[in-house]
Amino acid sequence: MGMLEFDGHRYLDGRASDPRDLGWMRDAPPPVEKRITIESDTVLQFPQMRWSLSHMRELMPTVNVWRKPGAPSHFERHEKTGEIDALTFTDTNGRTLRFDEALIDNYTDGIVVLHRGRLVYERYFGALEPHLPHACHSVTKSYAGTVAAAFVHEDVLNDTKTVAYYLPELQGTGWEDATLRQVMDMQTGLAYTEVYEDERSGVRAYMRACGWRPRPVGYDGPKTLCDYLQTVRKEGTHGETFDYKTVNTDVMTWVMTRVTGRSFAELLQERLWAPLGCEEDGYLTIDPVGTPLAGAGLSASLRDLARFGELIRCEGAWNGKQVIPAFVVHDVQNGDHPAKLSGGYSYRSQWWVTHDELGAVEARGIHGQRLYIAPEAEMVVVRFASHPFANSQVGDIITTPQMLALGRMLRG
Amino acid sequence: MGMLEFDGHRYLDGRASDPRDLGWMRDAPPPVEKRITIESDTVLQFPQMRWSLSHMRELMPTVNVWRKPGAPSHFERHEKTGEIDALTFTDTNGRTLRFDEALIDNYTDGIVVLHRGRLVYERYFGALEPHLPHACHSVTKSYAGTVAAAFVHEDVLNDTKTVAYYLPELQGTGWEDATLRQVMDMQTGLAYTEVYEDERSGVRAYMRACGWRPRPVGYDGPKTLCDYLQTVRKEGTHGETFDYKTVNTDVMTWVMTRVTGRSFAELLQERLWAPLGCEEDGYLTIDPVGTPLAGAGLSASLRDLARFGELIRCEGAWNGKQVIPAFVVHDVQNGDHPAKLSGGYSYRSQWWVTHDELGAVEARGIHGQRLYIAPEAEMVVVRFASHPFANSQVGDIITTPQMLALGRMLRG
Repeated sequence: MGMLEFDGHRYLDGRASDPRDLGWMRDAPPPVEKRITIESDTVLQFPQMRWSLSHMRELMPTVNVWRKPGAPSHFERHEKTGEIDALTFTDTNGRTLRFDEALIDNYTDGIVVLHRGRLVYERYFGALEPHLPHACHSVTKSYAGTVAAAFVHEDVLNDTKTVAYYLPELQGTGWEDATLRQVMDMQTGLAYTEVYEDERSGVRAYMRACGWRPRPVGYDGPKTLCDYLQTVRKEGTHGETFDYKTVNTDVMTWVMTRVTGRSFAELLQERLWAPLGCEEDGYLTIDPVGTPLAGAGLSASLRDLARFGELIRCEGAWNGKQVIPAFVVHDVQNGDHPAKLSGGYSYRSQWWVTHDELGAVEARGIHGQRLYIAPEAEMVVVRFASHPFANSQVGDIITTPQMLALGRMLRG
Repeated sequence: MGMLEFDGHRYLDGRASDPRDLGWMRDAPPPVEKRITIESDTVLQFPQMRWSLSHMRELMPTVNVWRKPGAPSHFERHEKTGEIDALTFTDTNGRTLRFDEALIDNYTDGIVVLHRGRLVYERYFGALEPHLPHACHSVTKSYAGTVAAAFVHEDVLNDTKTVAYYLPELQGTGWEDATLRQVMDMQTGLAYTEVYEDERSGVRAYMRACGWRPRPVGYDGPKTLCDYLQTVRKEGTHGETFDYKTVNTDVMTWVMTRVTGRSFAELLQERLWAPLGCEEDGYLTIDPVGTPLAGAGLSASLRDLARFGELIRCEGAWNGKQVIPAFVVHDVQNGDHPAKLSGGYSYRSQWWVTHDELGAVEARGIHGQRLYIAPEAEMVVVRFASHPFANSQVGDIITTPQMLALGRMLRG
């Protein structure tokens, strides 16, 4: 059976972990050893995750992100499957890989590539199908950040105001004196850590509060997202350094929903799903009292993420209509304080700015979710995956050079 | 504030219980007294139900019933709103009511009327919107029964075989020697009761096992649908009397999924949602290990139920294609052993057969869900409601004569 080693641990490889062969959650009832549940904390375990990331709504309550009535918007197809499959590139470790084989090496669940708005490549693996929404994880943040930045540009929100100005509930918490802009750009000083593997990390408590992880017997911690956010205290200084913390996205979105009176699901529907003519409904996981998780809760189809990517590549315009202000896209592309980040990235309004030769911006989520928008190659790549490692750095060894090689090829 | 009295209890009336005014689950987070959760057992409480029946997926895990890609099938419109609103009729208690006012009196969430396949009337109230799926409750059974009867006609299933022949897991239970036909027609003798108001009733234990109701601390009863079904023992004789028990539908569907290897969600998608060109995805609530609840778990949009009703009215044909064998519809319409039931109804393949002057068959669900198909009036009525009473008999005082009066008017 194929195995791979990462960071000293051995995992089934992309082929051996194929969920169609492992038979998760099949039959009525599924055999005990093939069950995936929140209660058993198996939803985000590998290799169960290869099934669960395409089936989040079957594991927890969700709210719909409705498309709109009638037919979806159309993608022109100009497939270059053979040419792209055969593309070779060198990964960061110096190995030469074929494009198609690298997808399997890197636990890809699906990939769509647009070039000049036309669909040139589309592949599905494992449990994913074209119409099935897949967990976007933190790619959700870039959706939320885009809508928030549009509201700032439209003067619905003022990003120089403090969080406490908008949310009196957060007085006395770490966010009290943080500006909305500092929250949007992840430049807050908070006593909260985000280490998925560490049981004592803030993100674990956050997940227990939100219903993503089981609660121990006698649990008396926070039972909703908002209750949890009210427990987070200040540590350090706001506005000094970039520090990636999912809870900032939830606070930013709480501000949006308070000011507009619309839920995050409604905002996504009105600002993006309907104008883009998405072909499938998306959905958001919600906490135990129905609050959508804007930091990581979106599931959507690959093609609908491609529509969003194409919107950003076209500076907020879609079929001749300005859906998101062009200023929002330019402001993200320029990036904020590139010096503040390691790895060459900067971060603005919940987007990663690569400063690479293709001028790319990225939405990134744990376990390999990626929306890569490369204006210089007129290319958008959307990729869903279920990589055993939460942190993207292991997957990036393959994915980053792979995207760049594809962009160079398409740029011609 | 408007109140109504049923069976000695007083309830907010249709207007006073409007969920838009009561503000359930709004704001982030919703105020404690406005929350609806499984944990607090408020999902099926009145008046919370006026919100929750349009939002089941936000309260528990669900599996999607996908429509298909592209545009939905089209309804020609020939609206007769004013004429139908003004129709008066006499309810079973002898009161004269206007059609439109009776809808509010009877806690209607939405209604669609088709005449000769054209949409003549469509109204939404409370929390329901045209694109939102609403809980169908036991209307689900008629969907399941239609598919099962089609499989019997196609020799995929043999309704003279016993349950144990198909499901060895149910040897030693009440179903062991029941034939599939007895299960389909609810003619089994089982030590199981279905009294929603009685905490000790079988249906309460069923709901706890399936995740619809909270489990007490230290609960060690069955934790899945299939586990629960294995606890039900025989009482009386199979095939002698009609006895309405939801668990029969779950057993019937378990047989279907075992034989076809397809889940109930997939069967609905392949046999009905896709061929009918439904305009919205439906969904099914599932038990804690992902098994869809075929006895009561479907949520769907009003118009998509109307499509199903029109299919049955047209003897299984849809736009010139035979989607369900005509035999299945005729067999239901003829009814099985009308003498066996009180109230003039008979029951066949999970449908209620009225034997009324319009030749109507009905799908019925608790709290007022109704799909009324009246061939003699070339009429289909779909109605969603959130009536405080689970048992339909209270609502029927208005709804039964209302449907009949409408059919007489449209028949002309």
